[in-house]
Amino acid sequence: MSFRLILQGGLAAGALLAVSMPAYAQEVTVATVKSETAFVFNTLLFLMGGFLVMFMAAGFAMLEAGLVRSKNVSMQCLKNIGLYSIAGIMYWCVGYSLMYTNVNGGWIGSFMPYSWPAAGTANEGDYSVGSDWFFQMVFCATTASIVSGTIAERIKLWPFLIFVALLTGLIYPIAGSWKWGTGWLDGLGFLDFAGSTLVHSVGGWAALTGAIILGARKGKYSPEGHVVAMPGSSIPLATLGTFILWLGWFGFNGGSQLAFGDNTNASDVSRIFINTNLAAAAGVVVAMLLMQAIYKKVDVTMALNGALAGLVSITAEPLTPGPLMAIIIGGIGGAIVVFMVPMLDRFKIDDVVGAIPVHLLAGIWGTLAVPLTNADGNFLIQIVGIVSYGIFTIVTSAVLWLILKATIGIRVSDDEEALGLDKTEIGVEAYPEFA
Amino acid sequence: MSFRLILQGGLAAGALLAVSMPAYAQEVTVATVKSETAFVFNTLLFLMGGFLVMFMAAGFAMLEAGLVRSKNVSMQCLKNIGLYSIAGIMYWCVGYSLMYTNVNGGWIGSFMPYSWPAAGTANEGDYSVGSDWFFQMVFCATTASIVSGTIAERIKLWPFLIFVALLTGLIYPIAGSWKWGTGWLDGLGFLDFAGSTLVHSVGGWAALTGAIILGARKGKYSPEGHVVAMPGSSIPLATLGTFILWLGWFGFNGGSQLAFGDNTNASDVSRIFINTNLAAAAGVVVAMLLMQAIYKKVDVTMALNGALAGLVSITAEPLTPGPLMAIIIGGIGGAIVVFMVPMLDRFKIDDVVGAIPVHLLAGIWGTLAVPLTNADGNFLIQIVGIVSYGIFTIVTSAVLWLILKATIGIRVSDDEEALGLDKTEIGVEAYPEFA
Amino acid sequence: MSFRLILQGGLAAGALLAVSMPAYAQEVTVATVKSETAFVFNTLLFLMGGFLVMFMAAGFAMLEAGLVRSKNVSMQCLKNIGLYSIAGIMYWCVGYSLMYTNVNGGWIGSFMPYSWPAAGTANEGDYSVGSDWFFQMVFCATTASIVSGTIAERIKLWPFLIFVALLTGLIYPIAGSWKWGTGWLDGLGFLDFAGSTLVHSVGGWAALTGAIILGARKGKYSPEGHVVAMPGSSIPLATLGTFILWLGWFGFNGGSQLAFGDNTNASDVSRIFINTNLAAAAGVVVAMLLMQAIYKKVDVTMALNGALAGLVSITAEPLTPGPLMAIIIGGIGGAIVVFMVPMLDRFKIDDVVGAIPVHLLAGIWGTLAVPLTNADGNFLIQIVGIVSYGIFTIVTSAVLWLILKATIGIRVSDDEEALGLDKTEIGVEAYPEFA
Repeated sequence: MSFRLILQGGLAAGALLAVSMPAYAQEVTVATVKSETAFVFNTLLFLMGGFLVMFMAAGFAMLEAGLVRSKNVSMQCLKNIGLYSIAGIMYWCVGYSLMYTNVNGGWIGSFMPYSWPAAGTANEGDYSVGSDWFFQMVFCATTASIVSGTIAERIKLWPFLIFVALLTGLIYPIAGSWKWGTGWLDGLGFLDFAGSTLVHSVGGWAALTGAIILGARKGKYSPEGHVVAMPGSSIPLATLGTFILWLGWFGFNGGSQLAFGDNTNASDVSRIFINTNLAAAAGVVVAMLLMQAIYKKVDVTMALNGALAGLVSITAEPLTPGPLMAIIIGGIGGAIVVFMVPMLDRFKIDDVVGAIPVHLLAGIWGTLAVPLTNADGNFLIQIVGIVSYGIFTIVTSAVLWLILKATIGIRVSDDEEALGLDKTEIGVEAYPEFA
Repeated sequence: MSFRLILQGGLAAGALLAVSMPAYAQEVTVATVKSETAFVFNTLLFLMGGFLVMFMAAGFAMLEAGLVRSKNVSMQCLKNIGLYSIAGIMYWCVGYSLMYTNVNGGWIGSFMPYSWPAAGTANEGDYSVGSDWFFQMVFCATTASIVSGTIAERIKLWPFLIFVALLTGLIYPIAGSWKWGTGWLDGLGFLDFAGSTLVHSVGGWAALTGAIILGARKGKYSPEGHVVAMPGSSIPLATLGTFILWLGWFGFNGGSQLAFGDNTNASDVSRIFINTNLAAAAGVVVAMLLMQAIYKKVDVTMALNGALAGLVSITAEPLTPGPLMAIIIGGIGGAIVVFMVPMLDRFKIDDVVGAIPVHLLAGIWGTLAVPLTNADGNFLIQIVGIVSYGIFTIVTSAVLWLILKATIGIRVSDDEEALGLDKTEIGVEAYPEFA
Repeated sequence: MSFRLILQGGLAAGALLAVSMPAYAQEVTVATVKSETAFVFNTLLFLMGGFLVMFMAAGFAMLEAGLVRSKNVSMQCLKNIGLYSIAGIMYWCVGYSLMYTNVNGGWIGSFMPYSWPAAGTANEGDYSVGSDWFFQMVFCATTASIVSGTIAERIKLWPFLIFVALLTGLIYPIAGSWKWGTGWLDGLGFLDFAGSTLVHSVGGWAALTGAIILGARKGKYSPEGHVVAMPGSSIPLATLGTFILWLGWFGFNGGSQLAFGDNTNASDVSRIFINTNLAAAAGVVVAMLLMQAIYKKVDVTMALNGALAGLVSITAEPLTPGPLMAIIIGGIGGAIVVFMVPMLDRFKIDDVVGAIPVHLLAGIWGTLAVPLTNADGNFLIQIVGIVSYGIFTIVTSAVLWLILKATIGIRVSDDEEALGLDKTEIGVEAYPEFA
């Protein structure tokens, strides 16, 4: 510690000298101080945004643990810490380079592990590339988290984790390269600020494909066509998860400004924080009002999903809307949840936590809404992007799910499902003394 | 992304030129770099402080979910996410301007929605005004959170939320304008650094008024005069909530320094972190020791409330005290909890989570303690402030509660109360498999 | 607020003048702006790292609340908020100075309370000394948290808290002075970047000593030599705790860079974030694969402890490893957990939460691994450090535990243990409606 700080002190002292001898130490100029300060601020934005988004893994874990039945809670916890871990490793091995290296307007980047400067050195440029990796990695993990909830309570552990490895190592990065890696869709002018489509819809399409191939939980849809409620085991944990996700979203959207080193960027990040919060708030309020109007009771899980849908909706463009537009965009997200959750049941698509309305449908809505406030947006190109991501994710996910189904199998047996995955796959009950 | 970063690079290159041609690019001077850096640091303090305080909404939700009985947990979760959402929208519509615009020593600001700079632009001044809005908004939401716990387990959902809308849109902002909006109490010299009175006592008075008008839970006070214990459903959730609140308080008090752009402000924020932590720690230790001495058992909820009371106590002045004074101020807060929780029961005021001792009484104590360490404080003026806030909040809250009572009603029926609000108002049980 | 900001504005205006009159206001030079900016960044790193590590107290509380049986959950919650509080107060009274003041290559610092600059003033140097105190304090508290889990479900409240007071006030600070206080081990060249040994092993040794002196829980080891499983009461809370700890670890390791004011330090902190994350991820994946291979079921608590062991392993050197080495170091941590948890049971050492494998054994491994990637590391000196910390902590802890045992007693009666500590010592059940 002292060694390092003394070095710094020495540098500062050197700087003092440098000022009086500008010819010999040109690196300490006003401009270099300015650019170095911006480098640190930008890096800070990535690291702070990154740890907030990292914590979203806990948010998903709690949301899902709260919304599954107690016999499957340990499994859901394990899946969530497992997927976050696998995503990180895969995104280092291959994901980041596939997404960001040598895409050049094309469809895919390079296959190679990511590498960053050695200890005690820094890269050129406007931010630490390591901090960018960290920030992008947690986005990749979020995509996998979205899948986890929809297909809960009947999928086997290892096939799920294999799917996650390929989703986070290949599918998400390739898809991501098209826009954020400056690939063909970026060239076309497709806009997605923080990932309504790149993260949330991609995760949502993968979840939807999985839910269809896997089939519904036993007993969810009775032969007579009734939908059987399977209420979640812990509303407070689901609520906690939602609040954690809301918190993390400030990092998700705010960090996607990608710069924080001057007045303008700092103001833009502030604007993003406000819009993100107002959209989520509107999602809650609209979902609550609709539930009261339609059902006369306010199902708390709809309010929670309303918040999340509001957040997903604003994610494609959290910067340009004014406050009223942010409220409208988020509020429509909340309405999507209220109307689409029963719709999915009509198609017998069994989405345990409501991730398809929240992430896929609100993600589509948010992406479509970009041109409403951003003059650079084009409605047609937004549709091209949405459809392209849909086709790519559905096809690659379906191939992957079907291969897994044909080989090691993806679904537990009926007996195991009835007993609960905690007993059969984990060997540890979530609440051994209560349930 | 790339576009923006290239622009930045261009700017830095331009700055290099500017240094050699100072006459043509005066904006890149030592002074502008210094003030721009401070602008970003100050904005960062608001955003970081803001997201920490935002997370306090989750803390209140968990604390309250843990301290109510399981039949009312879903309701408590819904109320907390609902109130946070409504507070954000109301504080945009009208609250912020009422509190901060054109108060000029008076009693009230302006009625108008808040507006902030367009995307890609920044305001003049020392920080992004948007970041300030975000920071002040989460304070407003905190005030509403305080009310929620006290009147739990018997209030109807919508009347509560209507109260919240008016509390966060009108009552809190008008009261806040008197001091933080540079109104009449600020002119008088009243001191309240981070809101022992403006946030915590205002919330506490509103809660007390509600508790009295609403009445106690059925069966809480037996006809023979006994107090019937109604233990909370989950101590770990209450503990988690307390830790989240403690974490958030670093943002609450630290952010209230309002500046972070130089050595002095950074040192002051550090000092505030330390004092905040020591006061909370002392609140815990004193509450534990007193419980052991008086009751021979250490009720964990008293320790949790001791922490919160310590935090509330130091909030009026977290900067000037030395460490020993911070410990004393917080420790007295802890003692207030231990002695005042039973006192409220004697008056048959049914405060489900202990918010009145924690937020109102410790808030008064903390406000009174300011002159002990801050030479600018005046004991008499502190009392004037405390009484003024008390009268204003009691009167406005009472009027509001009574109007709600007379119109749509505020209390559920005895049957509904017995069944639990989760079944009757939410339709979703918190723990359907256990309770 | 306005007053302070106007002052700042005035300063900036003054700076503008200063530029045109350099002779009269030399403090506003390029070099001072640069060093002031670094001061604020470094302070920010301590405060942000500090609040993240502070939140680890909640992580430990949830992990332990989830891993003990429901009859002891309230006790575990109380112990965790109590120990965090006591640690803060003791570290102010005496700990910090013992650790950092006048150690000068020796074995111990000075006995005196810590003091920091008055409000409105700043110290000389590269960061606010108050922010450093805050950061070091939360490390001290972490050490105590480690002890709490191992000896759960049978230790009395107050003897535990007395042990904590002396651990955090004396044992940890004296031990810490040897390395981080620039004592004799630092002079020798012992390396421990963020505390695999100084924090985690010291906590682990104290826990091990306590577990042995205290003895196992009644019924844990049957007379016939069987190990009786005593499953934890809530897997989701244990999972939440693990995620919170993982989040906090970015502050723990990232903050230990101790500087963030220039491109190189910002890049190093980024590198630390990545390595920390990869090591934890590898700990999870290795633990899961081993569990599947050996037991055919993936006990979720092993995955959680795998994450923590990965984190502890990388803590001694999170900067120099490349990504593959970080994965290997963390992965071996995960393996240690899987193999060593049953080993402890063979010795009838009853470690309720697995803290000894996670913190002590992985901490030793991480410390030994430093020379693998850091050329300044010396294998032999690392062993000297490990052994020295072991002997010192075992001896001082044992003396303390034995004195407590001989005087006020450390273990509850068999009846109390059977009833649960919540009823007998706290008087508040954790889940009164379920268990």
